[in-house]
Amino acid sequence: MNAPRKIGLWLIGALGGVGSTVALGLAALRCSSISSTGLVTELPLFAGLDLDAPASFVVGGHDVRQSTFVISLKELHARSGIFSEPLMAACQDVLESWTENIRPGTVQGSGQTIQGLADWVMTPSSANGWRIIENIQTDYRQFRDQHQLDQLIIVNVASTEPPTPLGEIHQYWPRLKSMLDEVNDPPRLPASTLYALAAIEMGLPYLNFTPSLGASFPAALALAEERRVPLAGQDGKTGETLLKSVLAPMFAMRHLKLLSWVGHNIFGNRDGLVLNDPANKASKIQTKDQVISSILGYAPQTHVSIEYIESLDDWKTAWDHIHFEGFLGVKMMMQFTWQGCDSILAAPLVIDLARFMALAQRRGEVGALTHLACFFKNPLGVQEHDFFKQSQMLLEYVTKVRST
Amino acid sequence: MNAPRKIGLWLIGALGGVGSTVALGLAALRCSSISSTGLVTELPLFAGLDLDAPASFVVGGHDVRQSTFVISLKELHARSGIFSEPLMAACQDVLESWTENIRPGTVQGSGQTIQGLADWVMTPSSANGWRIIENIQTDYRQFRDQHQLDQLIIVNVASTEPPTPLGEIHQYWPRLKSMLDEVNDPPRLPASTLYALAAIEMGLPYLNFTPSLGASFPAALALAEERRVPLAGQDGKTGETLLKSVLAPMFAMRHLKLLSWVGHNIFGNRDGLVLNDPANKASKIQTKDQVISSILGYAPQTHVSIEYIESLDDWKTAWDHIHFEGFLGVKMMMQFTWQGCDSILAAPLVIDLARFMALAQRRGEVGALTHLACFFKNPLGVQEHDFFKQSQMLLEYVTKVRST
Amino acid sequence: MNAPRKIGLWLIGALGGVGSTVALGLAALRCSSISSTGLVTELPLFAGLDLDAPASFVVGGHDVRQSTFVISLKELHARSGIFSEPLMAACQDVLESWTENIRPGTVQGSGQTIQGLADWVMTPSSANGWRIIENIQTDYRQFRDQHQLDQLIIVNVASTEPPTPLGEIHQYWPRLKSMLDEVNDPPRLPASTLYALAAIEMGLPYLNFTPSLGASFPAALALAEERRVPLAGQDGKTGETLLKSVLAPMFAMRHLKLLSWVGHNIFGNRDGLVLNDPANKASKIQTKDQVISSILGYAPQTHVSIEYIESLDDWKTAWDHIHFEGFLGVKMMMQFTWQGCDSILAAPLVIDLARFMALAQRRGEVGALTHLACFFKNPLGVQEHDFFKQSQMLLEYVTKVRST
Amino acid sequence: MNAPRKIGLWLIGALGGVGSTVALGLAALRCSSISSTGLVTELPLFAGLDLDAPASFVVGGHDVRQSTFVISLKELHARSGIFSEPLMAACQDVLESWTENIRPGTVQGSGQTIQGLADWVMTPSSANGWRIIENIQTDYRQFRDQHQLDQLIIVNVASTEPPTPLGEIHQYWPRLKSMLDEVNDPPRLPASTLYALAAIEMGLPYLNFTPSLGASFPAALALAEERRVPLAGQDGKTGETLLKSVLAPMFAMRHLKLLSWVGHNIFGNRDGLVLNDPANKASKIQTKDQVISSILGYAPQTHVSIEYIESLDDWKTAWDHIHFEGFLGVKMMMQFTWQGCDSILAAPLVIDLARFMALAQRRGEVGALTHLACFFKNPLGVQEHDFFKQSQMLLEYVTKVRST
Repeated sequence: MNAPRKIGLWLIGALGGVGSTVALGLAALRCSSISSTGLVTELPLFAGLDLDAPASFVVGGHDVRQSTFVISLKELHARSGIFSEPLMAACQDVLESWTENIRPGTVQGSGQTIQGLADWVMTPSSANGWRIIENIQTDYRQFRDQHQLDQLIIVNVASTEPPTPLGEIHQYWPRLKSMLDEVNDPPRLPASTLYALAAIEMGLPYLNFTPSLGASFPAALALAEERRVPLAGQDGKTGETLLKSVLAPMFAMRHLKLLSWVGHNIFGNRDGLVLNDPANKASKIQTKDQVISSILGYAPQTHVSIEYIESLDDWKTAWDHIHFEGFLGVKMMMQFTWQGCDSILAAPLVIDLARFMALAQRRGEVGALTHLACFFKNPLGVQEHDFFKQSQMLLEYVTKVRST
Repeated sequence: MNAPRKIGLWLIGALGGVGSTVALGLAALRCSSISSTGLVTELPLFAGLDLDAPASFVVGGHDVRQSTFVISLKELHARSGIFSEPLMAACQDVLESWTENIRPGTVQGSGQTIQGLADWVMTPSSANGWRIIENIQTDYRQFRDQHQLDQLIIVNVASTEPPTPLGEIHQYWPRLKSMLDEVNDPPRLPASTLYALAAIEMGLPYLNFTPSLGASFPAALALAEERRVPLAGQDGKTGETLLKSVLAPMFAMRHLKLLSWVGHNIFGNRDGLVLNDPANKASKIQTKDQVISSILGYAPQTHVSIEYIESLDDWKTAWDHIHFEGFLGVKMMMQFTWQGCDSILAAPLVIDLARFMALAQRRGEVGALTHLACFFKNPLGVQEHDFFKQSQMLLEYVTKVRST
Repeated sequence: MNAPRKIGLWLIGALGGVGSTVALGLAALRCSSISSTGLVTELPLFAGLDLDAPASFVVGGHDVRQSTFVISLKELHARSGIFSEPLMAACQDVLESWTENIRPGTVQGSGQTIQGLADWVMTPSSANGWRIIENIQTDYRQFRDQHQLDQLIIVNVASTEPPTPLGEIHQYWPRLKSMLDEVNDPPRLPASTLYALAAIEMGLPYLNFTPSLGASFPAALALAEERRVPLAGQDGKTGETLLKSVLAPMFAMRHLKLLSWVGHNIFGNRDGLVLNDPANKASKIQTKDQVISSILGYAPQTHVSIEYIESLDDWKTAWDHIHFEGFLGVKMMMQFTWQGCDSILAAPLVIDLARFMALAQRRGEVGALTHLACFFKNPLGVQEHDFFKQSQMLLEYVTKVRST
Repeated sequence: MNAPRKIGLWLIGALGGVGSTVALGLAALRCSSISSTGLVTELPLFAGLDLDAPASFVVGGHDVRQSTFVISLKELHARSGIFSEPLMAACQDVLESWTENIRPGTVQGSGQTIQGLADWVMTPSSANGWRIIENIQTDYRQFRDQHQLDQLIIVNVASTEPPTPLGEIHQYWPRLKSMLDEVNDPPRLPASTLYALAAIEMGLPYLNFTPSLGASFPAALALAEERRVPLAGQDGKTGETLLKSVLAPMFAMRHLKLLSWVGHNIFGNRDGLVLNDPANKASKIQTKDQVISSILGYAPQTHVSIEYIESLDDWKTAWDHIHFEGFLGVKMMMQFTWQGCDSILAAPLVIDLARFMALAQRRGEVGALTHLACFFKNPLGVQEHDFFKQSQMLLEYVTKVRST
């Protein structure tokens, strides 16, 4: 039997809630001290695929706040009441070694709130775009070389940036490249995009778990085709939006007419603090608010709000009020509240996606991995938002992979 | 062009909330005064099928309380605040003519509560089973002849009977038939079953929208095969259970482990009054409580309660508390409340099912119509409870019908 | 026995949801066709006080949209499903006669949204403040004379105006009066204030059921003292805020520490449309958001949002999420949803307040009626927000009245 | 300054959730490592009363399951996620010394479920009532002597017993005493009553925090008068019922007519397991269900259910649906969910009550302490259920104490 592959997982925003929980989860799975609950790839549906074992992964990443995995996890434990002390203790050595793989990142175009929270950024802190990309690539390369990785997956789990209006610069890679060389243009090329371009240009798979721009524009997609790189994104579908993509198809199939759908989200982690900045919030609401009309084929009144309520910490609580009309014009209601822990819901999906992307890269798949749509609020290259149709796409892919 | 078909819809429990709303709905659709919202068969997905227009239907039925459609509907309007006066006025003539098609029914084996509410039963009120079946068939036949119906569909929308433990008598039609001739055995052959046997024996399609026994046993299914009759049932999936069959697959697909699922239902219509009798309630809880473990493949703790709260009238309100475990053993919660109007949710599905059954009969389909599983809490002949997989079965049927 | 008194009730915003429901309620009480449910003054606690019978009231008012009580009520009935047709029919004659008492109003300083909805304003539509006040007084006087009223109570139930920053002009009545004569200054003297000054200057009791400025500033209060006029306000406490003022004292008395209190309100009537304008919304959130910290004596994080969701019509639905800490630092939660019909909750309180004010005027009470604090979100002249302490103030007043 | 008093707190059911949390709380307060949140007696309202400092208390008790405080608390920590490890570590020594004060108890008349859970009972396990009482008194006496206690308070925090129908035997103490001597009659004299009689007969204050019978019958009350003993009870008002006693007065004061009030409670701790036995549950539902009609003066339809849902552990979750009628017959709704941790809500109230009872004994108060009504679902000697009126009774008592 061959030596197992070694897969690098590079987390942008590594020391945030989601990033640290990914690290803890992989460390815990390594010593088999937890169940596989929450990991989609551990369902019997995916048995027999050539997915990398959790123990194959080595974690590194960028962050803009100087800390360690252990400190971040202890803070999550203290504030949100998650993780047991014994589990954290059992994983401490692995987590400390992985903390050594963290490098200072960039906050170009991340908005004032993220910039205000940052205390650890790459030098020089201001430079032309291309120079930053090269710095990033140096970090990627050093991690790959040092750990003799077979593959390296880049994942964005950083806080949400303000939205970027797409312009001409985002259309063609050659033109974009030439501009990168000359100017520093953070509003149009935010940090998430610099990390993405650095990855793609080096041939590394890139996964965007956030609503930030990343690689979601024509020039980046074209570069991915050219460099034969698989991409996935955008914005992990973990809670309230997942429910929308599950419930809206039910109303549609029963021919119940949606009149309005109000979603009110409250939470208090650092991502929430960033989303409290109206600039950053705009990106998030955009990806959350399109799901319903896309599934229904018509547009009921929708309202999505997100508020930072500090005491809730990582417990993302959503109240949705769904108003619908049935037979003979009668108005009826459904309400739900979702009390989910953000990092806990997101982290296993990041691991799942990394496993699927590593497989896809080995299979020579290129560009947007549309079979991963069920994981995203705004799936790259896919218009379908119905969770069950998206799941069907994944199952069809698995059947195809098995048969080849 | 040929004269349109004339289809009879015979409602057992015609003057109850669901029955009266079916009648009002068909009358309103006849004069095009309402939209098609709530009717699954009016979705574009089903366009082009040879389904009978609502105007093709003539309504009759049995009941055990002497009243009229108009009186029943006015009571629903006054107590539950549904239907507008102008709509009821526009339909009054049709409803009065259909009221003339209502005949007194039987309460054999319906339990003390239903028997206590009954004030209008067929004569003789006590007789051997076969004699009652013949009386029922006389009513079916007279309705068919008087209105020169092309097809006649029998639908059970009466209040829920106590559960019937299946025994030897329910296994073989010949033995059952011989026993019917001799004895009156209501506990084992409740009213719903007598109505069903009467229908099947005459070659009439039979649809059971309730949890009562009806035709859900081997001898009745065998008779249906022999008489070439299509069947469908059991217990319309209109609200809380529909949501279970939609949400449980989501938790399963995300590998979130369900710890417990509590459903508390309250409502105050006459069906609720009947379900307040523990004997009758047992049937209902049985069909509501199997969905989750069937979808998940394991059995979290579940609890279903149904309480009669008079002030709610027809507004069936459910609170569900869903407790689940995610990654790293973290427990999270979802709660929902569903505030739906029972008759309004059920009536269009009865019309949909009648249309599908009339089509099936013309196509020569026999026995349990498994493609209708998505309409039922306990689908006859189908183990699948996942709403989206059930919907897929219906869409595949439609594709097959279109191609033939 | 003397002839009963005749009391005029002048509603500013008469044809809105609250105004029309007040009119319907008084008309219905006149012919005794409804129960007294919802009327605080009909509780046994208040028996024996010299309160005016509902039949003593005659209704008039201003509005800026040309319509009638019957049309407004039919719209409420059709959209929100409230009131029965027989009730509206029984009251039709009275309502039509009262519609004749409605006069076109002013929209000075009401904000663009209200101005955009207005189609019926007093002439000249633009004038100096004093001129408008005189026009208003002409309407008050004509109503009083025509109906030979013993007393006339002016009540603001119009949509909410944008907030008015208080300045020097609001401090002294003589200065304010001289400025009114010269200039037209709607931003500082919005319509609600012109109606209030017109009333007070004429010696008429003034009641502000809205968050608009009205008479809530020193110069108006001084004028009220001078003219011996009783005042009450501000912003009727009908739903979510009522609950806050009931629940917050419970948490305080149990020494449970509130961490955050989030209130999300959605509704779809015309007041909601006006509140959808951020300028107008600011006034409302201000009165809703002060209750909690005032009761607790410390300030947990609070968030109040109000959104216009058209399909909800008059059904004001609120979701509140209350996060609190108990013994040993454990965080716990309470959530509630309130589904109340705005007009139905507000209208009886307007009638109660009118009865209490008429009594107060006869008793010679002057200035802010602090015993009415339990009716208001922002009680004039009172710092107490605890509903039960406020109720105690009312009961003590009643005891005092009874003993004199 | 004198040496501080030393007060014994004897907990019946000491090692259960509430008992262990009381012990942890007192231990933590002793070393000042927690805030006073949750302790009513630490509100400024009660400053200056001669209440015993938490450090004055020494804990002992009976239990029927052999364990230790530390084991019980670790189980609560692991299952319900409450208490931090550092806090438990800091209190470990004190808790271990208090564990030595725990003695095996009796399960006479506690019902099959409690008896099935018991593994540690006093010898002889079966005896006549008087003999058991003497055994109990030996334990009380030994604790008092060993720790040289100034006062000793007996508190029942054990799981709920089945209800005891009151008979002649419960009327007169002399007759009861003579019967105790002769017979063992657990159905009529359950464990809670034997503990209570043992306390009262010895002159020890007795506090019943559960719905079990305890001292709530004439003969026990007469004995308390004779022995000059203060009593308090019954059934701590910690969550859903507290809310009922807060919200019902609001509906009453607004003259809103309650149509129905449904309360559905789910939880999964050991008390919940006991309540899952219909015999024991009957006691609980009885004390929870009387509050509303008592406050309103009329009886809307009410429904209370309690279900054992294991995964919820100590998190008592309640959903209440409140249906009410407002002006003009319009039906409206309020719903709430309460997610409280049972032990955390109950424990500080037990400490508060012990402090108030020790004070009362020193002041020579005898019999039911009616000023403590606000702490109980079914206050001994008080008909008032309105929380704010009950709180008023406590404040009036405090005023009286201060002035003497």
